[in-house]
Amino acid sequence: MRTIIECVPNVSEGRDAARIREISDAVRGAPGVRLLDVSSDTSHNRSVITFVGDAAAVRGGVLALFEATLPRIDLRKHSGEHPRMGAVDVVPFIPLRGASVEECVALSREVGAEVAGRYGVPVYLYEDSAASENRRNLAEIRKGQFEGFAAKMQDPAWKPDFGPAQPHSSAGVVAIGARAFLIAYNVNLGTSDLAIAERIARAIRHVSGGFRYCKAMGVALADRGIVQVSINMTNFRKTPLHRVFECVRSEAERHGVAVVGSEIVGMTPADALYAAAEHYLRLERFTPEMVIETKLLEGEE
Amino acid sequence: MRTIIECVPNVSEGRDAARIREISDAVRGAPGVRLLDVSSDTSHNRSVITFVGDAAAVRGGVLALFEATLPRIDLRKHSGEHPRMGAVDVVPFIPLRGASVEECVALSREVGAEVAGRYGVPVYLYEDSAASENRRNLAEIRKGQFEGFAAKMQDPAWKPDFGPAQPHSSAGVVAIGARAFLIAYNVNLGTSDLAIAERIARAIRHVSGGFRYCKAMGVALADRGIVQVSINMTNFRKTPLHRVFECVRSEAERHGVAVVGSEIVGMTPADALYAAAEHYLRLERFTPEMVIETKLLEGEE
Repeated sequence: MRTIIECVPNVSEGRDAARIREISDAVRGAPGVRLLDVSSDTSHNRSVITFVGDAAAVRGGVLALFEATLPRIDLRKHSGEHPRMGAVDVVPFIPLRGASVEECVALSREVGAEVAGRYGVPVYLYEDSAASENRRNLAEIRKGQFEGFAAKMQDPAWKPDFGPAQPHSSAGVVAIGARAFLIAYNVNLGTSDLAIAERIARAIRHVSGGFRYCKAMGVALADRGIVQVSINMTNFRKTPLHRVFECVRSEAERHGVAVVGSEIVGMTPADALYAAAEHYLRLERFTPEMVIETKLLEGEE
Repeated sequence: MRTIIECVPNVSEGRDAARIREISDAVRGAPGVRLLDVSSDTSHNRSVITFVGDAAAVRGGVLALFEATLPRIDLRKHSGEHPRMGAVDVVPFIPLRGASVEECVALSREVGAEVAGRYGVPVYLYEDSAASENRRNLAEIRKGQFEGFAAKMQDPAWKPDFGPAQPHSSAGVVAIGARAFLIAYNVNLGTSDLAIAERIARAIRHVSGGFRYCKAMGVALADRGIVQVSINMTNFRKTPLHRVFECVRSEAERHGVAVVGSEIVGMTPADALYAAAEHYLRLERFTPEMVIETKLLEGEE
């Protein structure tokens, strides 16, 4: 496939394996969709479904997801540790290859209108799709949760972007939006002094003057006797891993501390690693099309 | 596909587009084969066909290739600048993912025996498949070319590994073997002094004391007014790009010269770039399975 958009919907069912399978099977069955992962958390009572495809495939996957979820999840009977507001709680679209954030924003609007129209579920556009700043942050939207939404939606400030101004009786409301791929990236320091990790976290994170697409905090790794700068890279194309790594290294050096390693937690797009290789090897005229695996993927329908 | 073996046969036809298409279509039609590229050179009168698949698919692709080539290329009527000894001149098998060189050696023997048995074309096993040192080097085998092979094969030292001790009347002989992926990699230096590039080439190349899987020479880039260390990385897993790059950088520095860039010419497997990212970012516990694109490819049949 030439265009790869990732979709990672969260649904409010993490305990009933049969239901989760029925829902994920519905997504898998949508034409052009490739289901990559289904992770369920019983204490959260919540599942994360990861699938990819081009825009049309992903759109079909989301509709199939709603079609299968609505009769199977009733939020009036749902409890779990994770805050939630919908049976399908959130639907993020993430451009991986051959698509821009802008295209994913357009897709989220199209799918949002369709979900509201077909199923009567109110839709809030969030993150890069948000129509106003107060809807950018998912946690802000989700405040009050399922039980509080009937009241919350009385406030004109919380009129949904699509659909009725009252929650769906069993399925609540849903947030749909485009966002960049988030890489969970940690840098480990050769010291047990947590204050140094915290200081470096402050240096690199956006909120305190650091990189635009970087969130960070200091964490102690008790078992290893070292500390870690724990980072969320919220846009690796604009704030690349290697730039943050080098900044951490330079800040650590100023304290006489070495970087002993770094780690990617979970998944990463290949481009994030190509960018690091390109930087350090000083590659000229590099494009991902020079990588055999890219050609193999492009050979796909 | 979980196992990816690349096969890059060279056939002795680079001018007749219809014939080249018929031959490459035959390869493309083999079950499980993905045809990635067909490059023809009219002055060489030779085409390079690149395809991938698992062992069974690649085996089928090679048999389809012979089936289509034998009636279409007659070496008695062939001329071109590139030395050649067969209608299908050489068939390399290259492990890309989920397969070892050893498995490709086994595959080359199996396919070699089959080609000789079915088509009466003598087969020489070369590179990592070679049964003796003098057959490792393709240029050594090819000496004498098509026209000289009837005489060359009288010598017991040049008895083929499979098939009759005389060339096929129209198709000559073929070399089949396993080899690691070759990356053409150049490092550009901020000087016009060719002697420095030559000196660094000598430092890094195997033959004069350098890295085991590295061939190199100094080249002047007249248009840019700089020089280049032009490198063939013959096994990037055992001699990685970043190690050679750092060695070039260190040697250049000793001459007060900067590395202005490097370049990959043609294709590279993703793993070569992942290894560089892993090295410089000091990644802990990294595996290619953490890359989304790897998962996408593994989802394939």
